[in-house]
Amino acid sequence: MKALVTGGAGFIGSHIVDRLLERGDEVVVYDNMSTGLEDFISQHFKNHRFKLIHGDILDLERLTKEMTGIDIVFHLAAHADVRSGFIDHKIDIEQNLMGTINVLEAMKINGVKKIAFSSTSSVYGDATIIPTPENYPFFPTSLYGSSKASAETYIATFCEYYDMTAYIFRFVSWVGERYTHGLVFDFLSKLEKDPTCLHILGDGTQKKSYLYVRDGVDAIFTVIDKAKEKMNIYNLGNDEIIDVTDSAKVIIGEAGYKNVRLTYEGGDKGWIGDNKYVLLDTKKLHSLGWKAGKDTREGLRITTRYLLNNPGVIKKRNGRLAPKS
Amino acid sequence: MKALVTGGAGFIGSHIVDRLLERGDEVVVYDNMSTGLEDFISQHFKNHRFKLIHGDILDLERLTKEMTGIDIVFHLAAHADVRSGFIDHKIDIEQNLMGTINVLEAMKINGVKKIAFSSTSSVYGDATIIPTPENYPFFPTSLYGSSKASAETYIATFCEYYDMTAYIFRFVSWVGERYTHGLVFDFLSKLEKDPTCLHILGDGTQKKSYLYVRDGVDAIFTVIDKAKEKMNIYNLGNDEIIDVTDSAKVIIGEAGYKNVRLTYEGGDKGWIGDNKYVLLDTKKLHSLGWKAGKDTREGLRITTRYLLNNPGVIKKRNGRLAPKS
Repeated sequence: MKALVTGGAGFIGSHIVDRLLERGDEVVVYDNMSTGLEDFISQHFKNHRFKLIHGDILDLERLTKEMTGIDIVFHLAAHADVRSGFIDHKIDIEQNLMGTINVLEAMKINGVKKIAFSSTSSVYGDATIIPTPENYPFFPTSLYGSSKASAETYIATFCEYYDMTAYIFRFVSWVGERYTHGLVFDFLSKLEKDPTCLHILGDGTQKKSYLYVRDGVDAIFTVIDKAKEKMNIYNLGNDEIIDVTDSAKVIIGEAGYKNVRLTYEGGDKGWIGDNKYVLLDTKKLHSLGWKAGKDTREGLRITTRYLLNNPGVIKKRNGRLAPKS
Repeated sequence: MKALVTGGAGFIGSHIVDRLLERGDEVVVYDNMSTGLEDFISQHFKNHRFKLIHGDILDLERLTKEMTGIDIVFHLAAHADVRSGFIDHKIDIEQNLMGTINVLEAMKINGVKKIAFSSTSSVYGDATIIPTPENYPFFPTSLYGSSKASAETYIATFCEYYDMTAYIFRFVSWVGERYTHGLVFDFLSKLEKDPTCLHILGDGTQKKSYLYVRDGVDAIFTVIDKAKEKMNIYNLGNDEIIDVTDSAKVIIGEAGYKNVRLTYEGGDKGWIGDNKYVLLDTKKLHSLGWKAGKDTREGLRITTRYLLNNPGVIKKRNGRLAPKS
């Protein structure tokens, strides 16, 4: 099988690339390297089944050219910062929705029939059914969520128009090796500046589930290998939740900080558009035989160690996190 | 109340304008007149509570300027031809999704807090639950459906970000006075060319529900007056369905054609992306006290008479339908 992975130099994308190459597949990474890192994929540079294209999904001509002969697209490239959409209304539309439409157009032109897509629990917004099942309707509360929900509806239509098959994964937050942004990163950045105090957005009671990246990749390939519908939609998450205060304690403990005072911004959400209680119903995924190998706390601990042990990678990412020493 | 009606010179929009003026409200019609007709609103030209702006919703600057002092936006402007999205992938995105995002941006800039939006039963696609309730998830099978579903998700986020209230109406096909495109129009156009034979797309078994325009407008104002949520989502449809062959017979009978032979294109859908069985669950709407005044067949008969009695209007619309006789 020959796969094209958009965002294949990113956190999740690079783990998918590892898995595809382990399976014996051919891989084209298509990444604009805006947040992806060569360090995440350089181990494959000498593999003849691997190719890296520095390309942008908004460049339809290039994307179309590179999709020649591809059997499946893993579309991971995205603007993944949920918060910034409130300030910049255009970025999610452009990167996530228009980018996805370009991927679909390039697939259509090349006759590519399969797409795996990284959607998000944010499509559900503040769901009133917890754990939230896949047939819960879309009520996003962020432009990130809107852009991913919209992208799903375009994938649905392209599947109908051009007889494509889609594997849509609605992710909770992922953690693990190569993690480069999000809660653990933010907390360690703050602690590096002030090891005595950690300021938490919201009131600390927001509840989230985190999925360990290798478990998530297992889930993706389980679905692709076993699911048989035209539109295969699966929640991907851990069945455990943790509140933000407890997450902070796990991260502080693993990083070895002592006597850290927790302060709170207040309010029941971390930011405008945040969802205060994210727990997905993963029965559908479990029915295919998948199980998480790491729980939420282990995932957070692994991520903390990874960030502390890889200051170089993180510095390249945005120059914000230095080693704790 | 001062209302801005995008697409206010169109079929449904102009009926909303009539109702707003009857209620004593002030109305700004914002229409690019691409399919709208002055004949539909010229009766109000001397009313000091009425103003017509020839403007495009894709012109954000103009739209923002004209939204000054508005209390509620009725956003009806859209590319409403479901079929053409298969050929032209850009038109629904631009007119329906980007247009709606512009409306939301202009509302945000002006502090307008209420939007009524014309969505569609097409957001559900080929629903497996019939009649289809509002909490059925989005699986559109046309880019028209995708664009409207996407627009809904952007409205949801703007409501969250900027404390707006939305009234979202998922329409079946509407019929009645000022109807300018769709099944009745197509059938009468074909019969005018050949009164002996009517060729039907699909196999004639597709089942649809049609809503009479004045009943639909009643429903819209019932919801706006009574619904109290942040996001008020209502299916709007008739509780009766009719298959395409029966629709053809009603139209042929009302138009007075005799001995018309029906021929069929074949296939269980009228076109790529069509939904073969559209019946919406309208319990939520009925719970507010709304009832349809005209059934589906009456609606089709009224529309047939309207088209035959108003060849001038229809000629202006696209020059295709001349009077029978």
